[in-house]
Amino acid sequence: YGKNTIKFLRLHKEGKKHFVKEVEVCAHLRLTSPQEYLEGNNCLVIPTDTIKNIVLVLAKKNGIPSLEQFAIDICNHFMTTFCQVAYVKTYVQEVPWQRLYEDGVPHIHSFICVPDGIRFCEAEQCRNGPLIVFAGIKDLKLMKTTQSGFEGFYKNEHTTLPERHDRILCGELFCKWSYGECKDFDFDCIWKKIRECILEAFAGPPDCGEYSPSYQKTVNCIQMLVLSRVSQVQVMEVVLNNTFYNVVDMKNLGLTNDKEVLVPVEAPYGSCACTLGRKKFFEA
Amino acid sequence: YGKNTIKFLRLHKEGKKHFVKEVEVCAHLRLTSPQEYLEGNNCLVIPTDTIKNIVLVLAKKNGIPSLEQFAIDICNHFMTTFCQVAYVKTYVQEVPWQRLYEDGVPHIHSFICVPDGIRFCEAEQCRNGPLIVFAGIKDLKLMKTTQSGFEGFYKNEHTTLPERHDRILCGELFCKWSYGECKDFDFDCIWKKIRECILEAFAGPPDCGEYSPSYQKTVNCIQMLVLSRVSQVQVMEVVLNNTFYNVVDMKNLGLTNDKEVLVPVEAPYGSCACTLGRKKFFEA
Amino acid sequence: YGKNTIKFLRLHKEGKKHFVKEVEVCAHLRLTSPQEYLEGNNCLVIPTDTIKNIVLVLAKKNGIPSLEQFAIDICNHFMTTFCQVAYVKTYVQEVPWQRLYEDGVPHIHSFICVPDGIRFCEAEQCRNGPLIVFAGIKDLKLMKTTQSGFEGFYKNEHTTLPERHDRILCGELFCKWSYGECKDFDFDCIWKKIRECILEAFAGPPDCGEYSPSYQKTVNCIQMLVLSRVSQVQVMEVVLNNTFYNVVDMKNLGLTNDKEVLVPVEAPYGSCACTLGRKKFFEA
Amino acid sequence: YGKNTIKFLRLHKEGKKHFVKEVEVCAHLRLTSPQEYLEGNNCLVIPTDTIKNIVLVLAKKNGIPSLEQFAIDICNHFMTTFCQVAYVKTYVQEVPWQRLYEDGVPHIHSFICVPDGIRFCEAEQCRNGPLIVFAGIKDLKLMKTTQSGFEGFYKNEHTTLPERHDRILCGELFCKWSYGECKDFDFDCIWKKIRECILEAFAGPPDCGEYSPSYQKTVNCIQMLVLSRVSQVQVMEVVLNNTFYNVVDMKNLGLTNDKEVLVPVEAPYGSCACTLGRKKFFEA
Repeated sequence: YGKNTIKFLRLHKEGKKHFVKEVEVCAHLRLTSPQEYLEGNNCLVIPTDTIKNIVLVLAKKNGIPSLEQFAIDICNHFMTTFCQVAYVKTYVQEVPWQRLYEDGVPHIHSFICVPDGIRFCEAEQCRNGPLIVFAGIKDLKLMKTTQSGFEGFYKNEHTTLPERHDRILCGELFCKWSYGECKDFDFDCIWKKIRECILEAFAGPPDCGEYSPSYQKTVNCIQMLVLSRVSQVQVMEVVLNNTFYNVVDMKNLGLTNDKEVLVPVEAPYGSCACTLGRKKFFEA
Repeated sequence: YGKNTIKFLRLHKEGKKHFVKEVEVCAHLRLTSPQEYLEGNNCLVIPTDTIKNIVLVLAKKNGIPSLEQFAIDICNHFMTTFCQVAYVKTYVQEVPWQRLYEDGVPHIHSFICVPDGIRFCEAEQCRNGPLIVFAGIKDLKLMKTTQSGFEGFYKNEHTTLPERHDRILCGELFCKWSYGECKDFDFDCIWKKIRECILEAFAGPPDCGEYSPSYQKTVNCIQMLVLSRVSQVQVMEVVLNNTFYNVVDMKNLGLTNDKEVLVPVEAPYGSCACTLGRKKFFEA
Repeated sequence: YGKNTIKFLRLHKEGKKHFVKEVEVCAHLRLTSPQEYLEGNNCLVIPTDTIKNIVLVLAKKNGIPSLEQFAIDICNHFMTTFCQVAYVKTYVQEVPWQRLYEDGVPHIHSFICVPDGIRFCEAEQCRNGPLIVFAGIKDLKLMKTTQSGFEGFYKNEHTTLPERHDRILCGELFCKWSYGECKDFDFDCIWKKIRECILEAFAGPPDCGEYSPSYQKTVNCIQMLVLSRVSQVQVMEVVLNNTFYNVVDMKNLGLTNDKEVLVPVEAPYGSCACTLGRKKFFEA
Repeated sequence: YGKNTIKFLRLHKEGKKHFVKEVEVCAHLRLTSPQEYLEGNNCLVIPTDTIKNIVLVLAKKNGIPSLEQFAIDICNHFMTTFCQVAYVKTYVQEVPWQRLYEDGVPHIHSFICVPDGIRFCEAEQCRNGPLIVFAGIKDLKLMKTTQSGFEGFYKNEHTTLPERHDRILCGELFCKWSYGECKDFDFDCIWKKIRECILEAFAGPPDCGEYSPSYQKTVNCIQMLVLSRVSQVQVMEVVLNNTFYNVVDMKNLGLTNDKEVLVPVEAPYGSCACTLGRKKFFEA
């Protein structure tokens, strides 16, 4: 198979007000025959240059109503236009431009880049199979300064980690969920709702939080909340890359340090990942 | 001289509410004698490990009231404690943790990383000289989708660029300003005011913007507005790394493209930089 | 499942001569029960801190005879020590330190980092299943300045790419192969042999090269040569990330440019990937 | 002032043998008048697009005989062509393509990227001033596994570092030297000689090495050796970014670790820098 990446900006005006979407599109194609590899016969090969042109032409003609709809449009185009395509997957990622506000007033044509989690989606289809849509958020960095611990874990002669009931929980989240064979969803609205669920499940109630006994359990809480609140989600994968913080031992400097000064531990860093689907959910 | 970088987190509670600052501190020291280099005599050398301990101890004892005050505290400590230090410069940069909000309600101990411009500061001092404080913002990405052009430039046989009166203006800003020998400033408040000035000067009025005839002029507008509105600023340096966008030519694809689909031009990318001080300002 | 990364250096002396290996180890574990996720019950969880200790202890006791043997040792340790482990995968990657030479004389304890392709390996095992070993090379950047073209590809109304019979072929290779259930292989020796095959298949004979009709065919040539020359390899995956170079059009500058000055095309960049196994090989 | 970066490849043939240079060129210009900034008057501004064209045209016409000569050519062109240019600086950096060898035989048109230190140079000139040439190497990673210590440093109540007489010395070197107003130098030959001096001064004799009492002293040794052996060098700046390695304490795991297993310390990392010139050299 082959893939390639195109980055571009789609500008759109309503009166004097400007709307901008900058996206990175990556298209994977697998052809019905591997003759290009085995025989060096290029007659079925669709050059990356052509793929780029198609993506840009679709953006020009249809705009980018939502990342997901744009990914679907691209998939559909390849499947209906090229009979030599056996499989197509389209990944679309957004540059997080947000409208600039001055004293609460939105600016008609100025934007600021705010990368507090990057939205992406995928659409994939095998010939004669259903078109499946995924969406997600990545590079979302969150921290809880309390209400997190790690106790009661397995111990043997190689264990040196002490039990902790009040540590920092900090990490970078990658979440990806499937909408199945989606109908006419309001993708933007659903995505925002899921983002809110993720934040809520991570942090707990604003006034007191919720105790997390492990990174793993926090991952599961996120999945459970999204699956219970957002019926359109079929399966959800969550990966949490942990950043550990150690309380600095200041005894030899003549000071006590009551979780006031902490340093990030670069290695080992860990991650935990889990994929949870609807069926599993009801079984659990 | 030598320098070293320390990253750590300072946690602070008021009742049940948590406050967090994660900073990266870089300390440069120059000693009065180069004997460590020339003779391998280490007797005056302050190990990076000791520097790290001092920074952490100061954070523990004083907290981080503001980035600037913390940088000043470190400078003062080195100058008063070590007579072999001829020069000290302290750079402090913030990890942009922001309090998490759920439905508009602030969370007492959860935070999200929002890197829409990174705040930093510097304090520097030569022995027997004044302590000077700088502050700044970097990695601030902004875009105007109209009200920008570039015309009337110098032309010769190597010129191929067409004149444009309606292009995209997009770039990454680095701004650094000096407060001179600062007194008891409210550094947080001034910094926020300057950030607002930068955005306003870049974008212009929310309802119509303001035409920019070049990246250079936009740089100058930022400096002029900050110097006119914020009396504490003595000198301001601005570097604007440009991202150019080209309107895709779709003629050979049978389409007109009225600045709707654009691609970023990776090379050449340019930057323009200018330092403007108060004296120059009045002369201008 | 969970994974974590540990970076360390293993030093070893023979008389006064020093040998150094710096590696990054990443261990993935899946447990027999998901109770840590679903119930927050940590009693089977092996903390990343313990995993780090085990990896370091194995490095201390056994050294790192080869990356592959070290990966196998780690897998074996987890499978035999922890009955709650259902699956283990170990990834080991080398920092490419090479002995320093002065006028052709090897230095007994000095090294230089030469990242012309990074060696890595993987060992993986399910409980009651075989232990499978993979090896590979990544970040290997190669270029052919001629003997490459791309012609006869599929064309339609979105095609703008011209046919070319003398272009630059440049890319970054990722190659990964499986040794199956390996016996007592000389992993270092085999790896070097495979690296040579990759270079030879990419470049062709030193005096004339070999024409490549596409990136895809070059990928296939690499796989065919390795599978035919190295009997221990069962399956081989190759991914080639292409960098395209365009001959600069200098007509409007009054010059002809006979493939003398070229600029890399940043977007779209493409990649092609193929996995070829022994059975397929004989079928082909 | 403004600057911009251009990356391109220059191909050159002698018979059937190909030679390739891929470079990144960055040109800084300062104009005689700041009117572009203050008044938005672009009439003297040389667009980055024009600068790119000039660099490419010079590469086409003159080739790249050496990085330094190419940088000089660009400076000369700007100074003689544009009277509005008050200052020009040209930075040229090489992509480290090396000819591929198969069984010791050089390939006529295939290359491999070997980034074991990146060569760069700078040429700079003020109007009516001399043209000064600098050259350098960066990203050169070196390690000594013994013959390094750090003892006798300054101690006070914040000192926790133990003295060590047998530690790892590892770091990334940046070296930049000035040739003054250079005549017709063989830049390639001198550069290679200096690189050898750097390696020799870092490592010491191949059979026994040479003890380094500090990173600072190693920096000085490099400067002294280069200045004493290479008469063309006027001033030399060296920055050494240190990576510290700690011997892992395995007592609580029931093992002794005689500098066999070490982990890199991510923070604080330090660097030491020094600039040494000929006059200083004789004074020392």
